[in-house]
Amino acid sequence: MTVTLLLVILLGALSIAYGVVTARQVMALDAGTARMQEIAQAIQEGAQAYLRRQYTTIGIVGVVLFVMIMLWLGIGVAVGFLIGAVLSGLAGFIGMNVSVRANVRTAQASSTSLAAGLDVAFKSGAITGMLVAGLALLGVAVYFFILVVLVGHAPNSRPVIDALVALGFGASLISIFARLGGGIFTKGADVGGDMVGKVEAGIPEDDPRNPATIADNVGDNVGDCAGMAADLFETYAVTMVATMVLAAIAFPADTLALGMLYPLAIGAVCVVTSIAGTYFVKLPANNSIMGAMYRGFIVTGILSLVALLPLTYLIFGTGTLTVAGASFTAFSLFLCGLVGLAVTGLIIVVTEYYTGTDYRPVKAIAESSVTGHGTNVIRGLAVSMESTAIPALIIIAGVLFSYNLAGLYGIAIAVTTMLALAGMVVALDAFGPVTDNAGGIAEMAGLPKEIRVTTDALDAVGNTTKAVTKGYAIGSAGLGALVLFAAYTQDLAYFSANADTFPYFAGIGTLTFSLTSPYVVMGLLFGGALPFLFGGMAMTAVGRAAMSVVEEVRRQFKEKPGIMAGTERPDYGRAVDILTKAAIKEMIIPSLLPVLSPLVCYFGVQAIAGKAAGFEALGAMLLGVIVTGFFVAVSMTTGGGAWDNAKKYIEEGHHGGKGSDAHKAAVTGDTVGDPYKDTAGPAVNPMIKITNIVALLLLAILAHS
Amino acid sequence: MTVTLLLVILLGALSIAYGVVTARQVMALDAGTARMQEIAQAIQEGAQAYLRRQYTTIGIVGVVLFVMIMLWLGIGVAVGFLIGAVLSGLAGFIGMNVSVRANVRTAQASSTSLAAGLDVAFKSGAITGMLVAGLALLGVAVYFFILVVLVGHAPNSRPVIDALVALGFGASLISIFARLGGGIFTKGADVGGDMVGKVEAGIPEDDPRNPATIADNVGDNVGDCAGMAADLFETYAVTMVATMVLAAIAFPADTLALGMLYPLAIGAVCVVTSIAGTYFVKLPANNSIMGAMYRGFIVTGILSLVALLPLTYLIFGTGTLTVAGASFTAFSLFLCGLVGLAVTGLIIVVTEYYTGTDYRPVKAIAESSVTGHGTNVIRGLAVSMESTAIPALIIIAGVLFSYNLAGLYGIAIAVTTMLALAGMVVALDAFGPVTDNAGGIAEMAGLPKEIRVTTDALDAVGNTTKAVTKGYAIGSAGLGALVLFAAYTQDLAYFSANADTFPYFAGIGTLTFSLTSPYVVMGLLFGGALPFLFGGMAMTAVGRAAMSVVEEVRRQFKEKPGIMAGTERPDYGRAVDILTKAAIKEMIIPSLLPVLSPLVCYFGVQAIAGKAAGFEALGAMLLGVIVTGFFVAVSMTTGGGAWDNAKKYIEEGHHGGKGSDAHKAAVTGDTVGDPYKDTAGPAVNPMIKITNIVALLLLAILAHS
Repeated sequence: MTVTLLLVILLGALSIAYGVVTARQVMALDAGTARMQEIAQAIQEGAQAYLRRQYTTIGIVGVVLFVMIMLWLGIGVAVGFLIGAVLSGLAGFIGMNVSVRANVRTAQASSTSLAAGLDVAFKSGAITGMLVAGLALLGVAVYFFILVVLVGHAPNSRPVIDALVALGFGASLISIFARLGGGIFTKGADVGGDMVGKVEAGIPEDDPRNPATIADNVGDNVGDCAGMAADLFETYAVTMVATMVLAAIAFPADTLALGMLYPLAIGAVCVVTSIAGTYFVKLPANNSIMGAMYRGFIVTGILSLVALLPLTYLIFGTGTLTVAGASFTAFSLFLCGLVGLAVTGLIIVVTEYYTGTDYRPVKAIAESSVTGHGTNVIRGLAVSMESTAIPALIIIAGVLFSYNLAGLYGIAIAVTTMLALAGMVVALDAFGPVTDNAGGIAEMAGLPKEIRVTTDALDAVGNTTKAVTKGYAIGSAGLGALVLFAAYTQDLAYFSANADTFPYFAGIGTLTFSLTSPYVVMGLLFGGALPFLFGGMAMTAVGRAAMSVVEEVRRQFKEKPGIMAGTERPDYGRAVDILTKAAIKEMIIPSLLPVLSPLVCYFGVQAIAGKAAGFEALGAMLLGVIVTGFFVAVSMTTGGGAWDNAKKYIEEGHHGGKGSDAHKAAVTGDTVGDPYKDTAGPAVNPMIKITNIVALLLLAILAHS
Repeated sequence: MTVTLLLVILLGALSIAYGVVTARQVMALDAGTARMQEIAQAIQEGAQAYLRRQYTTIGIVGVVLFVMIMLWLGIGVAVGFLIGAVLSGLAGFIGMNVSVRANVRTAQASSTSLAAGLDVAFKSGAITGMLVAGLALLGVAVYFFILVVLVGHAPNSRPVIDALVALGFGASLISIFARLGGGIFTKGADVGGDMVGKVEAGIPEDDPRNPATIADNVGDNVGDCAGMAADLFETYAVTMVATMVLAAIAFPADTLALGMLYPLAIGAVCVVTSIAGTYFVKLPANNSIMGAMYRGFIVTGILSLVALLPLTYLIFGTGTLTVAGASFTAFSLFLCGLVGLAVTGLIIVVTEYYTGTDYRPVKAIAESSVTGHGTNVIRGLAVSMESTAIPALIIIAGVLFSYNLAGLYGIAIAVTTMLALAGMVVALDAFGPVTDNAGGIAEMAGLPKEIRVTTDALDAVGNTTKAVTKGYAIGSAGLGALVLFAAYTQDLAYFSANADTFPYFAGIGTLTFSLTSPYVVMGLLFGGALPFLFGGMAMTAVGRAAMSVVEEVRRQFKEKPGIMAGTERPDYGRAVDILTKAAIKEMIIPSLLPVLSPLVCYFGVQAIAGKAAGFEALGAMLLGVIVTGFFVAVSMTTGGGAWDNAKKYIEEGHHGGKGSDAHKAAVTGDTVGDPYKDTAGPAVNPMIKITNIVALLLLAILAHS
């Protein structure tokens, strides 16, 4: 145990080392002209100011929760919460800081060659990616090491399980705030800026005359980079935790440690394969940027698969394990890993089909733009709804295969493997905001047009990778949440069976969570309502934030007529400031919704129909959130991506090209898609998991009482 | 039994009598000028041509299914299917035929006074409403009478239950085709016509120069009138059937007949109270049309409540009944009826809040229109998603109360009471297309402007009642589907317990439908995907139909330049014809989706994991459809209504009024909302129930095999 854990920690540390070394390489590069550095400086300051205020606000909530957890569950558990929260915040913070420095260097490198631009941008993404995976792995592994090896708790003892759950909760909490706050900021700036700039004033995107342009670039970093990093940190950590908790409850004593270490070992091995994969991202002869990205990803996938087989045998040997009624071998578990990788691959393919400019859905949206704004939006909504069906079937197939291979633990291992690639996936994703910023800086600094062409090419790929990553994020979040739900039911069964130690659970008996119980149906409906309400609130928030930007930009244009003539400088800072306040204010209530709902559901039903009904309703609520949340999130992220690319498709010269009526309609679709794909949709991911992890935490607190 | 049934049939016949008498009254009115009659004639012909082709297509599917049901389940059951299908079609057909004759008479009456216009329009709606409720009640009651009293089957024997289920299936099948086909037609015409007419050519709605204008008016009748009538006929019939099936399975032998007759008796009494209520719809002194409508509705509600109390005691006496473990008295059942009425009232209030021009949501959408198309759509989507939460809580509370009062049967009685008011609700709703048409005829016939003001005032109320009715329809559909789901699980338990008679069910044991089973989770996900896929397909269909109209109208404008000058007559017939073909073609595949999915789900899982898992997955699928279907339908219908009224709010002179940029943005929102609220959203209702009833039918077939 100790040796394995130390090896895991060592490999986890490797990702930090990779981050530090690569960051130095990137920082050593040329940061461009004074004008470029000045713009980059403004973005940097805006981003830091936003993050500072966001973390201060979250900090207040965090401290209150820390104290409450300490009082209810003790200091060990509270420290777990702290670790999860701080590391999640740190992953976002570092990622963003690299990103706001890499942007200008990418712009500068793009003036040399496409290959050089790609190299800087991808490296910067890879730093964030490896730090996300590395910090998540280290957080869980190190604290587990401390609690089990140093403090001496049994691996399946409540202090350990509770601490792990609290760690997940800490990560989730930061994640939902970061995703939502960052999402509101970035899309408020994007939508608001575009509406006054592109539509009203008729100036191009990133035109320095637009007072919202710095805010837009800040938004790329705080939303797409910091928010996304916190999100995947959370999914990674929470899935590890859920798998370990499941193993702790279900495995027999002799193989318990193995069951808990295996997910950590998968994570550790995949850190290495991910780092290896990054070195394969090189522009091929045909200049296909997407090809370069996929090559790196596929190499990582294959290497992981190759490494997984011996690893699994090394840990579980050649015998047959029996866990909670399911019998399986090491090979079955390896196959579960294969299922996880297959799910990842299939979801990427499907997402690309629905969001790529080469396929029917995006082309149909573009075609509908010819007949106007209305038909564009109708078709886009149709695509967004339709695009949920195949991913749902993929998830269903994944659950079916992995469950039949190795029971609930099999599902957990499939998800763990899926998430073990998070480092590489984040690398592909975090590449997006850097190139987006690089283009903005090139535009604002008045660099030659060819550079903008290069950064645009990189940016277009960034859009695709972002869409694809979101499909991966929600797919893994859905599966991860199912594992959390399984942990909830198993945990509850354990407490109920040991009611003499946990008197609160005396007399609740065996819970069946039967759909024939009206409390279960009510729980499903209640849970099902949350993603819709949450999504609606997030959309409202973006709408409001965007309107405040529109008003501010209009005001500046009116009060400073010199801005449009280019003789007066817009007040970029004020736009950033207004948005920061709006985003922070708007993120609070929707973020608390999933935290408080499980409590309302349990205590509400418990007051009416007793504890057993309360626990069943709560369980059903968790599943209700997963079911509708999955569809809401997929439809929003995919639909948004499709709208975005339909606009790009028209801009490539189809249906009249830029400036045509079709293009105007497509811009409307893109605007609608923005909060869909970058605010509400992605924020549903942590939302799904936070309800589940709060439920687990609630069990822990009730068990303590 | 015989006496009660005969009384029910007698009261049911009363509604037919009301329909015939009132229809004569309406027909006797002045049909206006020759030009008006000519236009009305064109609408009438178009509507009949459409309905003829629609029924022919459905007829083919129906005959195939009739033969299959006859072969599998015998002639008695097949006749049940036939009755359901024919009566559902008949309700739509008669309703539409009244509507296409009342429209021109309403226009003519509006030239006298608002009160006269209201009177004709409402009477025409009431004819449809009473026929819907009356035919549904008669269909179920008469066939039950034939099977039980004349043929002599026991009321809870399989031939009776199967025949009732088949009757529900017949109604559902017509309903989904009518809702979807009519919805695609009406919104294809509306969206397509508006986009070329209002947006491109800048001519007002219903301008006779627009070649799509007759098609638009035809659409109001085939979609909002015939489609809606078939939909509520179905919900009514299916809910009656589900309640009777539930009673047949669960009630002890001595009270069985009472349990089965009670829903029919509620329906019969409410026919009388609904007819009484129609006479209270009179324009009050303050000219509030909505006030007149609500007065009629409230009178019906109160009278129903007053009648329900003695009725319930008359049927069940003063003793305590014990059904499937739940003990209750007649008074508990009365309270369940009260719950049903309360749910109806609350849903109406909430829907009006979200779609009325006096409240925050609609005002917020109107305000967002100032900043452009994009923000309008974003805010509208936000409202549409948010608007699902409170209705969900109302449904949850309704389930909670009625279940605690009288178990599953209590829930069924609450829904039955809710639906017993369907006659009055349909009256309010069917009023809408008539006034809409009346306005169109006034415009096209060049009647004086004051008449258009009167019809517009009626039309605006029609929009609100339409939105409110949709909230009612989906609320009752959701609850009705829960009763169907309960019937499924009870039926299955019955077959499993009597496996010696039904050998197919041998060995499946007690099914728990536990959420901890992966097959249940899979079923939920699979079912959850259907409303999204179905909604997406419906939206796509409208988009495509609208584009075909846009192209046709553009072609006519181009080839006949005299149209815009008013010297040449557009070819209205071609637009109707193109749309008819498009709508019929587009409705087939989405309609078959919910019919075939239960079979795919059951046989798919059964092949992998056996019968028990198959039945559990199928049950979960049914609930998955209900859960996501409810949210998808509510968000679409409410969101669409809010967009529509936000446009109206601006047209009243806010934010720049008609012609302003805000208005243009609001028109886009309205266009998007059109297929939301009139095609996809309402079609989800029958879709939810058809999956459930197909599952019940599947059980019957398997039990026969």
